[in-house]
Amino acid sequence: MARWEPGARERLVLAAVDLFTEQGYDATTVAQIAERAGVTKSTFFRYFPDKRELLVAGQEVLSQLLTDGIADAPEGATPLDAVAAGLERAANAMGPMNRELGPRLKAAVAASAELQERDALKSVGLAAAMTEALVARGVPDPVAHLAAELGVLAFKRGYTAWVEADDETAGGLAPYASAALADLRAATASLG
Amino acid sequence: MARWEPGARERLVLAAVDLFTEQGYDATTVAQIAERAGVTKSTFFRYFPDKRELLVAGQEVLSQLLTDGIADAPEGATPLDAVAAGLERAANAMGPMNRELGPRLKAAVAASAELQERDALKSVGLAAAMTEALVARGVPDPVAHLAAELGVLAFKRGYTAWVEADDETAGGLAPYASAALADLRAATASLG
Repeated sequence: MARWEPGARERLVLAAVDLFTEQGYDATTVAQIAERAGVTKSTFFRYFPDKRELLVAGQEVLSQLLTDGIADAPEGATPLDAVAAGLERAANAMGPMNRELGPRLKAAVAASAELQERDALKSVGLAAAMTEALVARGVPDPVAHLAAELGVLAFKRGYTAWVEADDETAGGLAPYASAALADLRAATASLG
Repeated sequence: MARWEPGARERLVLAAVDLFTEQGYDATTVAQIAERAGVTKSTFFRYFPDKRELLVAGQEVLSQLLTDGIADAPEGATPLDAVAAGLERAANAMGPMNRELGPRLKAAVAASAELQERDALKSVGLAAAMTEALVARGVPDPVAHLAAELGVLAFKRGYTAWVEADDETAGGLAPYASAALADLRAATASLG
């Protein structure tokens, strides 16, 4: 099987995350990221307006995939079925690059208070976007909010399981996200 | 009924939040906060080591109250009953100062990307602390995580309802937090 080869965009993201881990977000410059990725600064700027956007860009794509999947779920789908459709849409768009990124991003976040804050805001933003998409389907507010929180939790738990799975057999993210949502759905019966 | 009179610590927090809203977190100095609160800079430093801690201090107290309440819940309590005990413990410690702070803090957070990130990290931190307290009671992981997320959501929703209630009849936070948790508990039945 051919080994996965990252393109310039992917190399820039991986280089940036590694540099954030090694020397902190603030101390890392666009020039250093480009050099580590083996591209020129002008190549960097073809993909991202600045280093902050490099972090934010992935979130916007993810948010769009999740909410599109929810919006396109069949009319009679339950709130959690709609969330499952969103997770599936997003998971199917994640490839080897996203799996590769997992442990590096985790290390970068662990090393930086600033990245922890951004990461937390990302979760809150995803939950808000999914809540809105569910409300647009006619799901009443407390149910929508709760289903969205379950969706974010399932995505995170599924992503972690995927990243920790054996390289040879890991496959795609979708079944991990789906299993994590099923676990959480089952857990609602034990809340008391 | 005597009007509530904030002490120096409360005045410092209110002054800081107002200044953060008016001119941003970064541009606000300890000297300005002390002046607005009508105290000296050395009084500020009797209460807080710096302006960042002024924001963080409240979270640590809240986290401790929530987890103590969970830990002290009766042995046979369900996960959500333990969460309810945590919410009650925390809510009973919130007074007029916390209610006063609500809309001002909301304005400050809306005005500042940095405060949005810290606020998001606060939610994540509270959920993590409550998850840990539930796991320590023997609640298995996915249930504990889910119950903790419901607790954070209930606290936020209850707090918002309390802040928006009529001044004359608002009373304490506890019944609002308890009602919000009951709403979310009921909503779990409609997730599908």
